[in-house]
Amino acid sequence: MGKGGKPEGGDGFGDASRDGVEQENMAAWLLGVNALKIQPFKLPNLGPRDVLVRLKAVGICGSDVHHFKNMRCADFVVKEPMVIGHECAGIVEEVGSEVKHLVPGDRVALEPGINCKRCELCKQGRYNLCPEMKFFGSPPTHGCLANQVVHPGDLCFKLPNNVSLEEGAMCEPLSVGVHACRRANVGPETNVLVMGAGPIGLVTLLAARAFKAPRIVVADVNDHRLSVAKALGAHEIVKVSTNIEEVAEELLK
Amino acid sequence: MGKGGKPEGGDGFGDASRDGVEQENMAAWLLGVNALKIQPFKLPNLGPRDVLVRLKAVGICGSDVHHFKNMRCADFVVKEPMVIGHECAGIVEEVGSEVKHLVPGDRVALEPGINCKRCELCKQGRYNLCPEMKFFGSPPTHGCLANQVVHPGDLCFKLPNNVSLEEGAMCEPLSVGVHACRRANVGPETNVLVMGAGPIGLVTLLAARAFKAPRIVVADVNDHRLSVAKALGAHEIVKVSTNIEEVAEELLK
Amino acid sequence: MGKGGKPEGGDGFGDASRDGVEQENMAAWLLGVNALKIQPFKLPNLGPRDVLVRLKAVGICGSDVHHFKNMRCADFVVKEPMVIGHECAGIVEEVGSEVKHLVPGDRVALEPGINCKRCELCKQGRYNLCPEMKFFGSPPTHGCLANQVVHPGDLCFKLPNNVSLEEGAMCEPLSVGVHACRRANVGPETNVLVMGAGPIGLVTLLAARAFKAPRIVVADVNDHRLSVAKALGAHEIVKVSTNIEEVAEELLK
Amino acid sequence: MGKGGKPEGGDGFGDASRDGVEQENMAAWLLGVNALKIQPFKLPNLGPRDVLVRLKAVGICGSDVHHFKNMRCADFVVKEPMVIGHECAGIVEEVGSEVKHLVPGDRVALEPGINCKRCELCKQGRYNLCPEMKFFGSPPTHGCLANQVVHPGDLCFKLPNNVSLEEGAMCEPLSVGVHACRRANVGPETNVLVMGAGPIGLVTLLAARAFKAPRIVVADVNDHRLSVAKALGAHEIVKVSTNIEEVAEELLK
Repeated sequence: MGKGGKPEGGDGFGDASRDGVEQENMAAWLLGVNALKIQPFKLPNLGPRDVLVRLKAVGICGSDVHHFKNMRCADFVVKEPMVIGHECAGIVEEVGSEVKHLVPGDRVALEPGINCKRCELCKQGRYNLCPEMKFFGSPPTHGCLANQVVHPGDLCFKLPNNVSLEEGAMCEPLSVGVHACRRANVGPETNVLVMGAGPIGLVTLLAARAFKAPRIVVADVNDHRLSVAKALGAHEIVKVSTNIEEVAEELLK
Repeated sequence: MGKGGKPEGGDGFGDASRDGVEQENMAAWLLGVNALKIQPFKLPNLGPRDVLVRLKAVGICGSDVHHFKNMRCADFVVKEPMVIGHECAGIVEEVGSEVKHLVPGDRVALEPGINCKRCELCKQGRYNLCPEMKFFGSPPTHGCLANQVVHPGDLCFKLPNNVSLEEGAMCEPLSVGVHACRRANVGPETNVLVMGAGPIGLVTLLAARAFKAPRIVVADVNDHRLSVAKALGAHEIVKVSTNIEEVAEELLK
Repeated sequence: MGKGGKPEGGDGFGDASRDGVEQENMAAWLLGVNALKIQPFKLPNLGPRDVLVRLKAVGICGSDVHHFKNMRCADFVVKEPMVIGHECAGIVEEVGSEVKHLVPGDRVALEPGINCKRCELCKQGRYNLCPEMKFFGSPPTHGCLANQVVHPGDLCFKLPNNVSLEEGAMCEPLSVGVHACRRANVGPETNVLVMGAGPIGLVTLLAARAFKAPRIVVADVNDHRLSVAKALGAHEIVKVSTNIEEVAEELLK
Repeated sequence: MGKGGKPEGGDGFGDASRDGVEQENMAAWLLGVNALKIQPFKLPNLGPRDVLVRLKAVGICGSDVHHFKNMRCADFVVKEPMVIGHECAGIVEEVGSEVKHLVPGDRVALEPGINCKRCELCKQGRYNLCPEMKFFGSPPTHGCLANQVVHPGDLCFKLPNNVSLEEGAMCEPLSVGVHACRRANVGPETNVLVMGAGPIGLVTLLAARAFKAPRIVVADVNDHRLSVAKALGAHEIVKVSTNIEEVAEELLK
């Protein structure tokens, strides 16, 4: 989960790796069910459009937990040892010769999926659906729970000064909420119902607030999760039963 | 322009007309170029879906001024004496038998255009384009710069307590800005340029802020208007020349 | 249903009712489960915007059958004797004083739902969702399986010469298919899957062809229905099992 | 341009270049105002995702003519000798190691603009607006009026058997018409007015027909161009004056 710290102030991050005594890159490898081990992780060479990033904060997603416990998540099966993790932010250490928008020292959030850029869906701007997507920590692609990764520069986004590295690592889940609000065309005239107050429900709530939805209702089966939703600005929370058949009626009340 | 006053507190409005001694309804009649006269204005009978409203605030629009000075505005020509005014709010005095959402005493803003509800455009929800629109103070339809008007109940909107009658009268111009922002799909990811800081430019600025546009630039030729835009929250103001040919370049700078 | 006949040629329709000996209007009344009876049906007076139509073709919809067999359809319950039927076309016999677009003798299709025209949804152009809709043959509103009905003129649409009265009666179900294609933004670049080859599936197929979908696949459990879909222009038909769990996989094949 | 011929039948195209005696690639170089010369044009090495295409048909666009006559088109200025041409189709001669969707001998249309695939606009699917676009024959990028070009495989589209190479070369201008119809959401319920019956006006007319616009009106100042529009299926043609002030009124008539 990293120890990113506030953006202000020197932090001595990664000094060791820059002083000539190159330290080996280490990462969290998933080796089997419930078996995670810190082992060396060799990086590819830095291409002209790539960036070398020293990671400072990595979130643990439900899918990481699924991989850890079951060696699979939905249809993605872990067949060989794999570095896990995909929600991350860090500090740029080196940039390829054609990367112009970043310099070493920049604090960046990483978009975890590398799309092919050539298929019909990529060309349409719906690249989240690219069938050749290589996504951090989704087998067979290695993830980012590591000291360093090499990543395409156009998928590294410089963080504003008022955004911490931990917050930067949360850009990926947050983007799910933003995408949902865009698709639903949420605005100052849209009432919003969020079903479920887990992490994705909560970032959707936050996004809906940013899109200025005048009334946001969050439903969940769990009192604690609902109290977090309330604290994050839900206008109303609704405790629903675990019986899916009854949820619609409970919400109407 | 009214003297509506704050919504809080009793105001004794219109008592005279309710005490049995029916007072004659008076209105501002446009009789010729620059000739406006307060004269009696006979109202139609109250239909089952109509509302009788005692007006408390009426705005003076640029189109009213055009009618006053030229007996015309664009293609609309004043051929007979006409009551002017269309931006208004007031207090409900009586409701027709089928009006359920309003009671006497309610403070309301009036939507000034009565559409036919039967043409193709009305059915599509684009009733602002109805070719049979009867619009307050647009010849040959009488306006609302009067003590009272009879208006369809579904075009009278109850004001929240925190909205004054003067603000209510401004709902009509404000709706132009809201419509512009909806059509342009303004949101937290849209930069907005407002050309002109007249009343409609300013309400568009306010609407864009409500739709959470992150950056709103307002351009005008007039320093005073720009300073008002600044005071109302424009992120940037740009003084442009009166030479339309140069405006694009001035804005780019 | 009906005996509309081709639009060409005189047909002597309804002469009896115009010769001074006014004939009583008759209709098919639903009196109880499986109990339908032809009885007199008194019409309201013709309002200024209304039209008197002599019906020539009336379709029997699945909902009519539900009412006939169960005295209900979904949440709509028949509590009192009711005239059924809502898919219809006929010939104008008389028009109200304000109706300008129709004259007696015009062949018309009738839109069966009278919306309130005043609620938020009607104003938005989504009047199909009007909560106060009065819909032919949906309790407690009488239907059109009658000799004559009085209907708002703006809901009577003149048929082109090349459209028969029977086809006119099918405008209502066809409009469901057109609406589906509009919502799905079907066009020359959209492949379409129609689930079910019942009447609504078939009109959706026809609409998708009119919107020029390049490939339309229709799925059903019934061979005969699929053969009709094929005859109406489906590019491909797929027989699926009645087990809903397996349908997705069957379609992928 | 070109002599592509019908897709049916052997044509012996380009045999010389495949028989071991490599022939030098030649192209039409623009050297100055009205100065075009056939000179050798050295191609880059074939990358893993590239395709080598022997061109068989190249259109001459208005922009090519502008470059030829003025050494500029709009803001694009020809400063050094440049191969012109951008509307083209040809036959694949060689494919890079990662190109899977094409084989030598395939007949292809070439999309003339190579976008960066990394900027915000490319990611949004609006890559036609990419500020780093490298577009055939738009200075300083060389064009395709040549025997051969090397082009990214994902921008080479295999032609169906019933589309000739000349028609393939016209895909680029046609796409302008298709884009216009998509943006205007043209469909079976949209009347279309095309202003101007030049090549782009004509392909827009063709696209509007393909999108099934029920009524397409084309306006121009030139009788011959209008007669071509008529021949291509315009429902109505309107001769307008060269005085722009009067065009609106002429069209209304």
